[in-house]
Amino acid sequence: MASLSLRIDLAPDLRIGPGKIELLEKIAAFGSISAAGRSMNMSYRRAWELVESLNGMFETPVVSAQSGGKRGGGAVLTPFGLSLVTRYRAIEQAATQAATAHLAELKREMAARPDAAE
Amino acid sequence: MASLSLRIDLAPDLRIGPGKIELLEKIAAFGSISAAGRSMNMSYRRAWELVESLNGMFETPVVSAQSGGKRGGGAVLTPFGLSLVTRYRAIEQAATQAATAHLAELKREMAARPDAAE
Repeated sequence: MASLSLRIDLAPDLRIGPGKIELLEKIAAFGSISAAGRSMNMSYRRAWELVESLNGMFETPVVSAQSGGKRGGGAVLTPFGLSLVTRYRAIEQAATQAATAHLAELKREMAARPDAAE
Repeated sequence: MASLSLRIDLAPDLRIGPGKIELLEKIAAFGSISAAGRSMNMSYRRAWELVESLNGMFETPVVSAQSGGKRGGGAVLTPFGLSLVTRYRAIEQAATQAATAHLAELKREMAARPDAAE
């Protein structure tokens, strides 16, 4: 039940959280920014804005999009983008593992004091 | 430089993040909701709303406020509130420790590819 959400603050105004990471993973899976956005119930415009913001955040782009062509071309993660996703998931896994006992204990305390007001 | 922010999702609509935890810590330190809010540049009203929302989130209150009296009374954390803060910080510390190597590597990769655009 209980779980963690993690935000990495790499620098002021340089934050990566679960939403951006999921979008990057979907882009890697679908090879398309619009298909990735669609799978997250995100508008085409919103998905593009997020990618542009991500690419502007780092000195190295995270997504490489081929514009033009009949269907607007595809998109792939750059090596740095892939590294960003992989490290985020590794940190998340390590954090979740570290938190498991505390979260279980917290749930137990919540259940054990249903009306211990004051 | 790089750091983590952690949100604990205990249940749907039952989320605890760094802002609420800091407010609880300040309430414990100052013994007063309004002083705690002030120290975080938060309006009296906003601090109270957050506390009420926190108390409503769990079956057990996290803050016990004595209303009334000339100066509106003080406020303390309940045992459950204290436990919530302590466990959050323990999870945060464990997560940060687990993330240190990844974060350092990520920073190094960011620095090593300043213009590796596709």
